[in-house]
Amino acid sequence: MFKKILIANRGEIALRVIRTCKEMGIKTVAVYSTADKESLHVRFADEAVCIGPASSALSYLNIPNLIAAAEITNADAIHPGYGFLSENAEFSRICAENGIKFIGASPEMINSMGDKSSAKEYMKRAGVPTIPGSEGLLSSAEQGKKLASKIKYPVIIKATAGGGGRGMRIIKSADEFDKAWNDARQEAKAAFGNDGMYLEKFVEEPRHIEIQIVGDQYGKVCHLSERDCSIQRRHQKLIEETPSPFIDDDLRERMGQAAIAGAAAIKYEGVGTIEFLVDKHKDFYFMEMNTRIQVEHPITEEVVNYDLIKEQIKVAAGIPISGKNYYPQMHAIECRINAEDPKANFRPSPGKINVLHIPGGHGVRVDTHVYAGYTIPANYDSMIAKLIVSAQTREEALVKMKRALSEFVIEGVKTTIPFHLAMMDDEGFKSGNFTTSYLDSYDFTQL
Amino acid sequence: MFKKILIANRGEIALRVIRTCKEMGIKTVAVYSTADKESLHVRFADEAVCIGPASSALSYLNIPNLIAAAEITNADAIHPGYGFLSENAEFSRICAENGIKFIGASPEMINSMGDKSSAKEYMKRAGVPTIPGSEGLLSSAEQGKKLASKIKYPVIIKATAGGGGRGMRIIKSADEFDKAWNDARQEAKAAFGNDGMYLEKFVEEPRHIEIQIVGDQYGKVCHLSERDCSIQRRHQKLIEETPSPFIDDDLRERMGQAAIAGAAAIKYEGVGTIEFLVDKHKDFYFMEMNTRIQVEHPITEEVVNYDLIKEQIKVAAGIPISGKNYYPQMHAIECRINAEDPKANFRPSPGKINVLHIPGGHGVRVDTHVYAGYTIPANYDSMIAKLIVSAQTREEALVKMKRALSEFVIEGVKTTIPFHLAMMDDEGFKSGNFTTSYLDSYDFTQL
Repeated sequence: MFKKILIANRGEIALRVIRTCKEMGIKTVAVYSTADKESLHVRFADEAVCIGPASSALSYLNIPNLIAAAEITNADAIHPGYGFLSENAEFSRICAENGIKFIGASPEMINSMGDKSSAKEYMKRAGVPTIPGSEGLLSSAEQGKKLASKIKYPVIIKATAGGGGRGMRIIKSADEFDKAWNDARQEAKAAFGNDGMYLEKFVEEPRHIEIQIVGDQYGKVCHLSERDCSIQRRHQKLIEETPSPFIDDDLRERMGQAAIAGAAAIKYEGVGTIEFLVDKHKDFYFMEMNTRIQVEHPITEEVVNYDLIKEQIKVAAGIPISGKNYYPQMHAIECRINAEDPKANFRPSPGKINVLHIPGGHGVRVDTHVYAGYTIPANYDSMIAKLIVSAQTREEALVKMKRALSEFVIEGVKTTIPFHLAMMDDEGFKSGNFTTSYLDSYDFTQL
Repeated sequence: MFKKILIANRGEIALRVIRTCKEMGIKTVAVYSTADKESLHVRFADEAVCIGPASSALSYLNIPNLIAAAEITNADAIHPGYGFLSENAEFSRICAENGIKFIGASPEMINSMGDKSSAKEYMKRAGVPTIPGSEGLLSSAEQGKKLASKIKYPVIIKATAGGGGRGMRIIKSADEFDKAWNDARQEAKAAFGNDGMYLEKFVEEPRHIEIQIVGDQYGKVCHLSERDCSIQRRHQKLIEETPSPFIDDDLRERMGQAAIAGAAAIKYEGVGTIEFLVDKHKDFYFMEMNTRIQVEHPITEEVVNYDLIKEQIKVAAGIPISGKNYYPQMHAIECRINAEDPKANFRPSPGKINVLHIPGGHGVRVDTHVYAGYTIPANYDSMIAKLIVSAQTREEALVKMKRALSEFVIEGVKTTIPFHLAMMDDEGFKSGNFTTSYLDSYDFTQL
């Protein structure tokens, strides 16, 4: 087992990793920028090394400084957390070259999964459902119609140069095809000077549902069921839960087995997540793979009694997994508490926390690096806490979350707490019947 | 279901009850003495009523003021918490007379179980093992020897007027009897002017192990397994855990069934605890019954996924229980964080908390009413927080507790944290092999 792990990250995830290391008897090294010298991860680690100024590029993304910090402290492994260098193939490679175990994916794995089309190709070959569509650009409307009738309507055609919805049309049946094709091409030509089009199956009423997997160095992979992350604003997850209110046992098992097949095919080692879109027919399609721990991992931990960071460290050290899959025994929800003003377009609200009261009691878990008197720097991600509740049913988890949110007092900065409180009373969210576009039409000014 | 519950208590248990009421959609009324007006239970309740000055006798034990507070706020039930009036038969009776549901035992039940000899008699009749001994006083050494050879040595003889160990002798065999009898009687005569003696089986290497039970209004009783509370100082519990490292499945079930038999025989309604002494032979003996929620109830909640306060409220409202028993699925430990100086004879250390950091993360629960800037009044119990951890094994729970304790920062007052930290490294405690007298020989000055 590792003797000392350097955590190449900050904030709550740095503290999260330190906690598990302490429980495993592994020494820890925190790294910090000058903006973070008062952060709890610095205080709770066994050692701490300043790696640069506030700018991420010069500190948390500064590979030479991180490697130097690991070398002077004699760390034998580096945990990258999420974000920053956690999916950086070069960092993974340089760690290996310096004889430091990178607790994450190999450079090759990061590259394969980091490129979306290559990842899709790998998964397709492993038998994981991917969104069907044209191989490259369509040569004609006729070719498009032929393909559409094969993969079944609705389909979507998209300008290869497109963006912002322009040069894009959803087509529900064959007799709509020609008009949509001509309109989209004209629009694309006018907007981008390029009318090249491709076609995909249109995923109706999609939900973002991801499967947590763990693979060891001996080819064994298990899944730990799903997390539903459909509540997003501009692709930023805000609320996650498990089990998904949309998933039944059969679909869970099919998605879990698909995730295992995909991860096993690429001989995946470590913890990882395979993200799927699931449509209203309960068909699911591979979206992407994250080769790292995720922000929302605690909800899985709560419902399956499992320490994912511990397992991540163990498999990095060569310890085999049992191979059994894990299924939710409870219901867990996470709200991301960000220092942002939800009424003002989620504008970041850095600054000093004057008063802080963190909720507690039965079924409540809080992962945070902040404390009363702490100043949230403007330089980084604005997530300041994760509030996680678990209960026997979704209904109980919702009221528990509402209770915990109502106790959460953060004075001095704006936070997303009012948004989350409103969501716990929101009929659409409470019904469990929502898609990834649920918040597109949400009126944030009512908060 | 009740519409509004008044909580006739303070501190963490008042907050604990408020939390569950919020999750159940029940309004709450906090009561407080003038010393507690800045307490969190006051802030988090829907309403709050001042019931008197700092002195408990004039506030939290002031029945007329409590009933008046319930009446002016239209509360339809009162939750007494633990301590204070929770086992006061008169209070239970007066609540009933005023049409307010007392969420606890009936006056008759409190009286039956509050008197030790009557409680023992009830339990004996229900077939619950009690400590065998003389019925009243012994008339002669001969009578004592006859009884001792029947219930088997070792036995203990005790002066009926005794205390502080005087007039008491442990007797290991018949040939020691006469000398011990004469010595103890002389000692008792000299010390108390009364040489009346009784005899009991001596419980060797006793552990304090209690069974949590829940009974409904329809005669159904279930058990929720045990809590081991052997780590005590002067009969004050300091650390509790479940499952007990001393108990196997067979003994758990026998103790659970005995507790159910005892509670069913008296038609017990509500949550309650039957406390046993368990000797080195794994024989167990009824000690007493607590007809209320206990301080250490959260460890049970953590390992069986159960909200005991919710269940307590539900059965008080007439909702039947399922009747199934609950068995630990995890290992949980609670450390009582008291504002006391463990190096100075656990002298209370009231005062202002200047800096506070509460631990969090995976498997950590904290129940507390304090916050940074809070002043602990000198008038009440010195417990300021309960730190509860749960993990898959006892070994993991121990390291998790150590980690959580190491993060717990309370500045401004002395606390029991250094004692608990030392215990997590104490070989005797870690071995799981300890009795209720374990701390008698503990060197607290080393902390």
